[in-house]
Amino acid sequence: MSLIVQKYGGSSLATPQHIQRVANRIQKLQKDYSEIVIVVSAMKGITDQLINLAKKTAGNKLKASELDALLATGENQSSHLLALALHQIGSKAKALNGFQAGIQVEGNHGNAKIQAIDIKKIQKSLKKEEIIIIPGFQGINDGKIYTLGRGGSDLTAIALASALKADKCQILTDVDGVYTADPKLVDKSKKIEEISYDEMLELSSSGSKVMQSRAVEVAKKFAIDFEVSSSFNERLGTLVKKDTKMEEVIIRGVSAETEQSRITVSEINDTPGAGASLLESLKDTNIDMIVVNVSPTKKRRISFTLHEDLLTKTLQAIKEKHPDLDLETEKHLSKISIVGIGMRSHSGIAHQMFATLGKAKINIGLVSTSEIKISVTIDEKDTQKAMESLHNAFELEK
Amino acid sequence: MSLIVQKYGGSSLATPQHIQRVANRIQKLQKDYSEIVIVVSAMKGITDQLINLAKKTAGNKLKASELDALLATGENQSSHLLALALHQIGSKAKALNGFQAGIQVEGNHGNAKIQAIDIKKIQKSLKKEEIIIIPGFQGINDGKIYTLGRGGSDLTAIALASALKADKCQILTDVDGVYTADPKLVDKSKKIEEISYDEMLELSSSGSKVMQSRAVEVAKKFAIDFEVSSSFNERLGTLVKKDTKMEEVIIRGVSAETEQSRITVSEINDTPGAGASLLESLKDTNIDMIVVNVSPTKKRRISFTLHEDLLTKTLQAIKEKHPDLDLETEKHLSKISIVGIGMRSHSGIAHQMFATLGKAKINIGLVSTSEIKISVTIDEKDTQKAMESLHNAFELEK
Repeated sequence: MSLIVQKYGGSSLATPQHIQRVANRIQKLQKDYSEIVIVVSAMKGITDQLINLAKKTAGNKLKASELDALLATGENQSSHLLALALHQIGSKAKALNGFQAGIQVEGNHGNAKIQAIDIKKIQKSLKKEEIIIIPGFQGINDGKIYTLGRGGSDLTAIALASALKADKCQILTDVDGVYTADPKLVDKSKKIEEISYDEMLELSSSGSKVMQSRAVEVAKKFAIDFEVSSSFNERLGTLVKKDTKMEEVIIRGVSAETEQSRITVSEINDTPGAGASLLESLKDTNIDMIVVNVSPTKKRRISFTLHEDLLTKTLQAIKEKHPDLDLETEKHLSKISIVGIGMRSHSGIAHQMFATLGKAKINIGLVSTSEIKISVTIDEKDTQKAMESLHNAFELEK
Repeated sequence: MSLIVQKYGGSSLATPQHIQRVANRIQKLQKDYSEIVIVVSAMKGITDQLINLAKKTAGNKLKASELDALLATGENQSSHLLALALHQIGSKAKALNGFQAGIQVEGNHGNAKIQAIDIKKIQKSLKKEEIIIIPGFQGINDGKIYTLGRGGSDLTAIALASALKADKCQILTDVDGVYTADPKLVDKSKKIEEISYDEMLELSSSGSKVMQSRAVEVAKKFAIDFEVSSSFNERLGTLVKKDTKMEEVIIRGVSAETEQSRITVSEINDTPGAGASLLESLKDTNIDMIVVNVSPTKKRRISFTLHEDLLTKTLQAIKEKHPDLDLETEKHLSKISIVGIGMRSHSGIAHQMFATLGKAKINIGLVSTSEIKISVTIDEKDTQKAMESLHNAFELEK
């Protein structure tokens, strides 16, 4: 008896033909696994279509509980279509919806958290059917449907793998795995065979949008090894696990996030709570890097980065609450990050990064560091040059 | 405290603008009703889209349980969209799905029957919210989703009106009500103010496709008065009830069903079971009129009508089981019916019908009668002439 949990994303289920191919792929698993649990996203584009439909019907301020229940129908549809396709090729499959799968959540609509999974319901179904299909992205609380937010289907799969003690967990998507850098930017970029949770987390949140961070965090918490691979071929993907064998690798990958902007606020008093009060006015915005420095005048300068699209709205929010502050902005930036667990025990990595960029005549703006990541902002036009230089300097193609 | 149940069909919910208009209409009900229960169909075209998607994904033999669950998402979507639109204009509304509404069904997937409604769930919701929206066409049995078949949303509304002892039940659709004849065929046709269940049943099943018969049957069984009217204007519709005040009216309406064909089987032995054996081979086909006569030779002739699209398939089915039978067919027929409770106590109606058609030089083929209906087949090309002659002869415009 061995159990596999697989998750298929929306691009893997984009058309009836895609769904048929996924069904064939799942059927082949029956040679190796006695219990198969499949988590599906909505067909590509459906969630956005439903959001648009809702906005056209009821404007931009949507009642969250009704929107959640509306969006959940997208995953329900793809789960039933996949079950139909499996039946068509002779495999017994059953799609459970949120009420039937017993995924208990808590928290807010649109961003709920998985609290518990009633595995008895799923195990009972697994005894009767060969393959169980579960719509990702949704759960139930007090008889109401909640969604888990973007990327929530990954989370569903990881949580199910943990609760069911799966022998294998695979996240099937439209890329071959996690790369040392975005292949579109860096020709020599290479698929990473194994990566640690922390490295994956730093890469995910720095723009290598293979998976949402929350799912990786849950995998880390419950020590669930999982593989990220492509549903469009049979190649081995990237294994994400606690620690990788290749401890000698210092830098695992480089990532870039374009269309960034910077806001710098000067003249914040160096008194307790002054920075917090500024950040308070930003709590509804997705700000990214936060860099604070003190100056000889005892005044602080706080800089932070955010997506260009959010710039106007964010400036307004600050001016409303803090009309006296001096604001300076910059657009057309990229955030470049290098990530690697090996950094922890190796000094000189920041120096090597800065020197590499300097040699390529790329100016560095803000800098922030974590234990396993260094991020800098540069001019957006230098993005590709920076990525290639760093990929070469840290010999990531090897 | 008064309670209304309204049902909106797919054409009334075709676009975001349609849904907004329905929301405004529902909001106005709050002046007159303290409890409002709305039943919705899927947005126009969605059910067919989902069926096509399923067929493209998994062929024509679809697992019924998965198809049902897939189709139910159409009504779920429109119910949540309507709830969102109501919130947008300031009304508190909640859409319940099949699991939450407690509509228990029994029978087969695709054609389930409503068995019971757990009104406590709905009453509890009505205490908390102003307006409850329930997806039609679906119910639950043993934790699984079943659909009620085409027109099932009407059934949901009637059953809810019965269970909740509604003060009013309205079926909102894209026509103004039930007419004495199809306005597209007969200029002088008139909206009927009141009609009995039986008359409505006979008119429904004779091609006046305002509502499916099953819903009217349930209304009759539980004596639920309901109104059929248009969601596109505020005009009064047609009231359907046990007996109408206007007992003196003999003929309530005329209906036509085009694209009919006839199969006549001769040489059926006049022995018990011979006809049954023939009909056995037809049990999966929708046959309509069945006319049987004996001849001096003690052999029977059985004729029946069916939609032209079903002719080839049905002929095959008969030939497979009864290769020895003589089959005669005719196409391009219309079935014309006159319907009215008053017929019960008035003789001479059939004579008047035949004389009217004869005077218009229209040949009559098959004839069949019920207590309150007489149907005949004629050449399809004479349809409009027949309808107008009969409408005039029975003075239906008055």
